Parts: sequence; C-alpha cells; structure tokens
Amino acid sequence: MRELYELCGSSPELVFSPYCWRVRLALAHKGLDFVSRPVRFTDKEALAFSGQKLVPVLRDGGTTVHDSLAIFHYLDEHYPQPGLLGGALGESRLLLIDRLSAQDLLPALARLLVPRVMACIDPVDRDYFRQSREKRMGMSLEAFAAREAGQAQLARALQPLDAMLQGQPWLDGAAPAGADFLIGGFLFWAWTLGEQPWPEDSPTGDWFRRLLAFCEERQGPVQRATHR
Amino acid sequence: MRELYELCGSSPELVFSPYCWRVRLALAHKGLDFVSRPVRFTDKEALAFSGQKLVPVLRDGGTTVHDSLAIFHYLDEHYPQPGLLGGALGESRLLLIDRLSAQDLLPALARLLVPRVMACIDPVDRDYFRQSREKRMGMSLEAFAAREAGQAQLARALQPLDAMLQGQPWLDGAAPAGADFLIGGFLFWAWTLGEQPWPEDSPTGDWFRRLLAFCEERQGPVQRATHR
Repeated sequence: MRELYELCGSSPELVFSPYCWRVRLALAHKGLDFVSRPVRFTDKEALAFSGQKLVPVLRDGGTTVHDSLAIFHYLDEHYPQPGLLGGALGESRLLLIDRLSAQDLLPALARLLVPRVMACIDPVDRDYFRQSREKRMGMSLEAFAAREAGQAQLARALQPLDAMLQGQPWLDGAAPAGADFLIGGFLFWAWTLGEQPWPEDSPTGDWFRRLLAFCEERQGPVQRATHR
Repeated sequence: MRELYELCGSSPELVFSPYCWRVRLALAHKGLDFVSRPVRFTDKEALAFSGQKLVPVLRDGGTTVHDSLAIFHYLDEHYPQPGLLGGALGESRLLLIDRLSAQDLLPALARLLVPRVMACIDPVDRDYFRQSREKRMGMSLEAFAAREAGQAQLARALQPLDAMLQGQPWLDGAAPAGADFLIGGFLFWAWTLGEQPWPEDSPTGDWFRRLLAFCEERQGPVQRATHR
C-alpha cells in the first residue's frame, strides 16, 4: 500500500499544496497509484509517525519519506523508469532551480493566493494559517497579499519559463520530468484554488494545460475550488 | 589548432567577458589547450568568419562554434569526458538556470561593473560601449550604474548560491561541471575587472576561490585589472 499524506481544504478532495502537487505529478509520471490521506493544517498529529510536521509525506510499504525532493529521490531509487532527477548532476541542478524559483515565483503566487487559501481551508485552520504566516512574513496577511505587487512579481517570474517553453514543450525538454513537476506544482497550487494568474495564451499557459492533461489522464479529474 | 576568440580590454591579456570565461573554464575542465585570440568591442571584422558578431567563438580544426552554451554542447559531443552538460536533461536544466540567473545576477553585476568596464577597455571602444549599452538599458551608463541598487540586487542573487554551496563544494555537486562554469563566468567577470563584490567569507566566496584555483592550476595565472 502506498499512501500520500497531503494538505487539504475544507473539502478533503481539495488538495492544493504546491509541494504535494509535485509528488502527485511524480507519481503520475511513474504510473504509481496511491491512496490520498488528506491532512488539515491543524491535523499535525496525523503526521506524527513521520517524525516531523510537514506534508507531503509518502508512506510506501514500510518506508516513510517526507519533503518533495527527498520523495523524488526515493522514487527514482526504487522505481527508476521513467526518471525524475537525471542522476546526481540532474538532482543538484533541480535543487538550484528550486532555490532560484523560490525568489520570485513562490512569493509572487503566495501573495496572490493568500485570500483563496483563507477561503478554501477549513474554518478550524484559519487562525493557525493566519498566525503562522504573519509570523513568517512579519506583516499582516492583508498587507502581504498586495495584488499589484504580486502580479508584477509573477510577470517577472514567468519570463524565464516563457523563454524556455518557446523552444521546447516541457521544461525538461522533449518529455516531462523533475523540473516540470517541481515548477508545475506551483501552478497547480493556483489552479486548484480556482485561480490562473498567468496569461492563458502564452508558452507557460500552453505548458500548464499539457501538464494538467498529463495528470488527469493518469489520475482522473483534478478537484478545483470554485469562487463563491 | 584550437582558437578562442574572446573579448579583451586595453591589454590583450585582460579577458573579462563572463561568456568567454564560461568557455575558458570549460576548456580547463576538459584539459584542452587553446590559443587566445583577443578581440576588442570594435573589432567586429575579426569575427566575420563566424557569420555573426559576438564572442566567444571557438575555432577547433575546421569547426566554428559561437555562443557559450552551444560551445559547451560542441565540447561534450567531441570531447565527452569529463562532461559539462549531463546529457539532454542536464542541458535543458542548465539553460533554465541560465535564464533564471539572468534575472538578478547578471543585471546586478552589470550595474556594479559598468564603471570598471569603461576604465579597462581600449579608449577606441568607449563610444561603442556607451552607445550600445545606453540603447539596450534605455538610460545613461551613469544612471544604470546605481551602486546601492546593484549591491542589494547582488545580495539577493547570491542567496540561492550560498544556500546550495553550504551543502556541497560545487554547484553541480561533488565535482565542478557546467553549472559551476556557467555561473562562475559571472564572478570571473567581476574579479578580472578588479572587483569582488561578494563577501569573501561566505559559501560563494569559498566556491569562487576553489574555481579560481581550479582554473589557474590548468591554465596558469588569471590576468586581473588593477585600480589606478
């Protein structure tokens, strides 16, 4: 039995964490099925078995792995084909891409998505989410969620992706692999929360549709929040 | 005979272009010797044989290749070991890393280095350099070379590098490869112009010293401009 512990909204089918989406996409890539174990922000005891408090956690037979890139590593080791990382060199470059994309793409989307996260999570999670994020950002959620600044930062973050995807269908070349799932996770975060803050008619927009189709072909329809 | 056409300052031994340094480092990595063909900004006719106007150009026997990443590709194809790219997947990730680092690292250093470029190039090149750069930036060189803004942008650009290099000696892992030379080229640009705008006592500072030693062991002392 393979279980994926992943963050959910007030509906347990609404899975939106970008790091959990990386793993869902990696499992789709490998053709591995899994049972979803939805976890709310304040359900930390559900993860106690993993010795830490963050999703995603993959439980595969007797093995427990947490952290999206550690899970990629585990999957490539135990189910080598098709590959995610591209060996030690590819893994190191993926880590650098992750650190580089944490400078604009992650904070830009976080700014734009904060109100949607508040709307989509279970009411019991809202105080936790507000307090933990306000502590991390050093400002109120409302001050952080500056829409214009977020849109400008996102436009900047999309430039290198658009440039790459003008020349090739996937970030990793002719076929999708680790970089597509690593960065794609951020776009699934927005999309599952009911947003799509990138231009539909753009190389990144086309790529996202390919990635969504890739995922839905293998794992069925992706649950998406609707605006009320 | 292997020849590298590379940008030089008023001294033909002062080679400072970041893209040319990528190729010098790649040649050091492969243990390939070459004859330097120094080219000034306004010596465009020296490159006419390559069908375009930009350095670096590598002429290897009967083959001419321009563009630093195309030269990496050529070198891996013709002199496979030790590798630079890591195959098609590694090459695609390197291109993404290049595009991502062009957002902060390249413009931050450009801002800080413009006055040094003006001081180090041949007087006959100065009008060309000023006009071409002012056209590209849409502002005067003096307005572009905002020191505080450049330092702040550089500090931001160094964060992902420091984070990577805290955990491993080279950007590409246990041994240097393409990502080290691609990003290292930017630091050689500063260093050869007599600057070192990153903290010496930092993971990036340590890595740069390793990269400089790696290069000098194989190619001899690196020429560096002095401030007058």
